[in-house]
Amino acid sequence: MPRRIDHDGRRRRIADAVCLLADERGLEGVTLRDVAARAEVSMGAVQRCFRTKEEVLVFALAHVGERITDRVRARLAASPARSARTSLRHTLAEVSLLAEEHRAEARVWLAFVAQAAVTPALATVVRGSYDELRALLVRLIAEAVDPPHPEREADALLALADGLTTHVLIGRLSPEAALEILDDRLTRLGESERPGTRRR
Amino acid sequence: MPRRIDHDGRRRRIADAVCLLADERGLEGVTLRDVAARAEVSMGAVQRCFRTKEEVLVFALAHVGERITDRVRARLAASPARSARTSLRHTLAEVSLLAEEHRAEARVWLAFVAQAAVTPALATVVRGSYDELRALLVRLIAEAVDPPHPEREADALLALADGLTTHVLIGRLSPEAALEILDDRLTRLGESERPGTRRR
Repeated sequence: MPRRIDHDGRRRRIADAVCLLADERGLEGVTLRDVAARAEVSMGAVQRCFRTKEEVLVFALAHVGERITDRVRARLAASPARSARTSLRHTLAEVSLLAEEHRAEARVWLAFVAQAAVTPALATVVRGSYDELRALLVRLIAEAVDPPHPEREADALLALADGLTTHVLIGRLSPEAALEILDDRLTRLGESERPGTRRR
Repeated sequence: MPRRIDHDGRRRRIADAVCLLADERGLEGVTLRDVAARAEVSMGAVQRCFRTKEEVLVFALAHVGERITDRVRARLAASPARSARTSLRHTLAEVSLLAEEHRAEARVWLAFVAQAAVTPALATVVRGSYDELRALLVRLIAEAVDPPHPEREADALLALADGLTTHVLIGRLSPEAALEILDDRLTRLGESERPGTRRR
């Protein structure tokens, strides 16, 4: 009987190696050879799992994206919050990867997003992750404040969370300052949103 | 008399080559050899201008950062707007690089920012550019609405602008949708900011 190889396990191991490298030095200059060395598998093994480097990146990105969306869902499910607004705050804090223990994941995500801007196959995966998070936010926003355009509010919050993550990563903002800005935005969410009120 | 070499011109030409490559495929895997070929200079010429690849990247990043901040200042100076709020809108539209003709610059900037998250020397240059833009925004925000925390508002707007740019680059949002979100935020700027009013 031929030796069975755990292909799925090996693919995940290779994806983890890509993430470790992306965290240490960005995706800049990472080669399949680096990935194989980091995953402690042979180049042949990498090549049997993936045909091109792009395939490796797409798989690794999907892997990170799933981990993030799964965690957001788990947090929502585990702590049924007192209000939709509180759930929204928890969700956004999780999405923005501001916790110290998710800083590495944030660096990896940013590296992938930047690469997605010039690699259509990666952009498709990134959009898929955002679509899931957006659907979750739209629901929470509609429950919390029922504004006329929950979709637009969700897009604004997602973009803000991403921008804040980036500014924390480059050392412009402390995670605390970023969280304050998010909180501030959530406190004001829905205000001035009713048609005909307080618009200037 | 020895032939004079225009070192500054050559450095800028090399920086432009880095930007062209970053726009085409990200910084991922770009080598000094690629840069030399793209700039149509020899590897020796690159090495006489810069000692390391990091030095090339730092110079190229500063070059893009200056171009962006200069353009923002020029736009402000050229069209003295009717109100600080209008100036603020113009400035943010410029900062967020949403215009079609600045899409390539936005891709390059995002590539550099992602790399800055793992490269301290790049992070310093990126922060320098943001500091200049932030100072400009703080002044305009204070003039437009005089909120209690213009600095925090400026940080929030900068992060939002960056997040929106990223979401346009990965094809999640149209530039028009991103501008609507920015406009919406500016319309509401300063509302609920007065102490003791409308806070929930």
